Amino acid sequence: MPKSQAARPRNAFYAQSGGVTAVINASAAGVIETARANKDRIRKVYAGRNGILGALNEELIDTSKETAATIAALRHTPGGAFGSCRYKLRAIEDSRAEYERLIEVFRAHDIGYFFYNGGGDSQDTAWKVSQISERMGYPVTCIGVPKTVDNDLPLTDCSPGFGSVAKYVAVSTREAGLDVASMCSTSTKVFILEVMGRHAGWIAAAGGLAAEKPGDPPHVILFPEIAFDRETFLARVQETVERHGYCVVVASEGTQDAAGQFLAEAGSRDAFGHAQLGGVAPALAAMVKDALGYKYHWALADYLQRAARHVASKTDVEQAYAVGKAAVEFALAGRNAVMPIIVRGKGKRYTWKIDAAPLSKVANVERKMPRNYITRDGFGITAAARAYLLPLIQGEAETPWRHGLPVIARLKQVMVPKKLPAFTPA
Amino acid sequence: MPKSQAARPRNAFYAQSGGVTAVINASAAGVIETARANKDRIRKVYAGRNGILGALNEELIDTSKETAATIAALRHTPGGAFGSCRYKLRAIEDSRAEYERLIEVFRAHDIGYFFYNGGGDSQDTAWKVSQISERMGYPVTCIGVPKTVDNDLPLTDCSPGFGSVAKYVAVSTREAGLDVASMCSTSTKVFILEVMGRHAGWIAAAGGLAAEKPGDPPHVILFPEIAFDRETFLARVQETVERHGYCVVVASEGTQDAAGQFLAEAGSRDAFGHAQLGGVAPALAAMVKDALGYKYHWALADYLQRAARHVASKTDVEQAYAVGKAAVEFALAGRNAVMPIIVRGKGKRYTWKIDAAPLSKVANVERKMPRNYITRDGFGITAAARAYLLPLIQGEAETPWRHGLPVIARLKQVMVPKKLPAFTPA
Repeated sequence: MPKSQAARPRNAFYAQSGGVTAVINASAAGVIETARANKDRIRKVYAGRNGILGALNEELIDTSKETAATIAALRHTPGGAFGSCRYKLRAIEDSRAEYERLIEVFRAHDIGYFFYNGGGDSQDTAWKVSQISERMGYPVTCIGVPKTVDNDLPLTDCSPGFGSVAKYVAVSTREAGLDVASMCSTSTKVFILEVMGRHAGWIAAAGGLAAEKPGDPPHVILFPEIAFDRETFLARVQETVERHGYCVVVASEGTQDAAGQFLAEAGSRDAFGHAQLGGVAPALAAMVKDALGYKYHWALADYLQRAARHVASKTDVEQAYAVGKAAVEFALAGRNAVMPIIVRGKGKRYTWKIDAAPLSKVANVERKMPRNYITRDGFGITAAARAYLLPLIQGEAETPWRHGLPVIARLKQVMVPKKLPAFTPA
Repeated sequence: MPKSQAARPRNAFYAQSGGVTAVINASAAGVIETARANKDRIRKVYAGRNGILGALNEELIDTSKETAATIAALRHTPGGAFGSCRYKLRAIEDSRAEYERLIEVFRAHDIGYFFYNGGGDSQDTAWKVSQISERMGYPVTCIGVPKTVDNDLPLTDCSPGFGSVAKYVAVSTREAGLDVASMCSTSTKVFILEVMGRHAGWIAAAGGLAAEKPGDPPHVILFPEIAFDRETFLARVQETVERHGYCVVVASEGTQDAAGQFLAEAGSRDAFGHAQLGGVAPALAAMVKDALGYKYHWALADYLQRAARHVASKTDVEQAYAVGKAAVEFALAGRNAVMPIIVRGKGKRYTWKIDAAPLSKVANVERKMPRNYITRDGFGITAAARAYLLPLIQGEAETPWRHGLPVIARLKQVMVPKKLPAFTPA
């Protein structure tokens, strides 16, 4: 990059990608507030309307039109304030036109920085954009900002978004467990909470934090990593009901049998014969009813778990903000094609700091839950898992309330005037 | 009652009944702490293990063995700390043996006060016990303590337990609504949250509080009071998606068609052909998918909504405590066969106070939601509903946290030694 170009302030492009979380907007606040504190280097932050689609469609939200108070309020607003999308840029050779369009839009709006807030796929895209922008003679500083409730990004100790869903699931399991325990003598004996995590059991594992002492719920956790076996499961449920009077199950939506068949798909069908989405809980409930005759109830938290900012982990909110802030700082320090990561301190007391990982090493690597986080019988979490998970749910993030409801950011969403003709993908 | 008997301290029996709530234990704390402050009149409070069954089975928990800190902690512990049950005493003529057994147990343990914490059925039982105890020559002071998430008790302005589930549903609807709005351009367009309330739409109505301005979610509320019509519903969903890009639906589990057929039963069946419990959301989702082709998600909060003490309404917790306290105060003032009720002040600013209603007028009367609380089109709440509901979710009840999780009361549950032979119901 010529020195003169590095010196003059350029605009930045920020986009949210994939499934949103309770804290992705805290990362947005980190990016925008840090950019505002460096106006000599970053003129304006444009946010993509509906994520990367905003760049392709030249739909850029001018965040400079939002007040400082609105940007600060992003810190406690769940969902993706600028819109997110499920849209994956393919390999460069397969969708060269899209990459070229991105660069064209960046060039038209003098965008020198690209902050991409998402999971593994998004880090891959950010990496590709950094490469192609060089090749096209319009180098853009590309920094990934980690986000995913699935906690499956590599290199970072945890992914922002996960700690809050983990806290939601642990709190809900504890609370519902007390409810079920109260009534089990004459009513529901088996309660099943279905949680997210199609490929990894991180979220289900967090349910295990609800237990303080042996016998506390949850009594059974079902992980995608452990092949589901009907007979073993039913035997465990029966044994638990006989010992404690009730049984609380936390089941990952990705629970599957040895053949890799998802229970959700093997389970219930609706009146039209469609396989029910999120059907692990009803499938398990039917199994319990059928084989053991116990009265059951089940809950499916679905989006509630990843949107529950009111019970977010303070640690998670702080980390989400910190990765947004660090992304801008890395960019200003001249770093490129990196992603801020969270590094856990080695001491007994939980500490963390931010470091950087090259996007090339992050992209398309999925981090699995270690087998030693799951008890030998496959139904619980180990002390190692607990030691890893517990710090991530610590602290209750500040939530402002008005009229009994959480206050949320209301953005003006002023659009940047378009400069280019509309883009028609091939 | 002979004067000598009135003067000497007697024991009290307290029992929790029916579906538990986030705040029923706050009522227990109100009863026990107020009794403790009046030791000259009430010697000990015995709690029924698993509700009224505890009296029938002579399983009495001696609450005097619990520390003051433990009793205080009940105020922030969801579920029924002493166990609740679904067990309805029938008419006196049909189950005389049970009523006689109750009085026999009361007599054996010198119980002169009966505090029954439950919904309409329990108030009916408390009333019957007050009558039969007179007739059997062992008069017991019977006071009902109102509780129900269904908000269907008559005479009282609201029922303790309802305000907190209302807050949970309003908060969850707002949060999940932001999530759906973020992603609707490329992902889920219709989100359905199924909530409790088989007979009345109070809880579903509370979802409407999430909206601050026109266009805010929820866009559609389905009440049991309004006959469900597939075509009208689908037309409204389509219109909403076309206008706002997405549609959030809050559906009561009691949603039914003009013929009184529950959607939950008409809807999905599991792999074994069982009708799915709590199946309104999947039934609606399938309908939307089938007719409109929109991508959908749905959540079923189930017990989570009535156990969510972490997001309880401060107003509700205070009222739950107050009715427990008032129950004891009424008993000590010589009142009998009454239930404390919440009376709303007439002023513009919300105020409330406690009064008493005779159990004879409470028992077996179900309070319906007024039609003028539902908009003419049947899909929303009116200003009148909002004015009624909003005060009930005000304030965030204090929740102590430890290690990132809510602290709960851990009771010793010391049992009172039995004095009678076992009871075998006819």
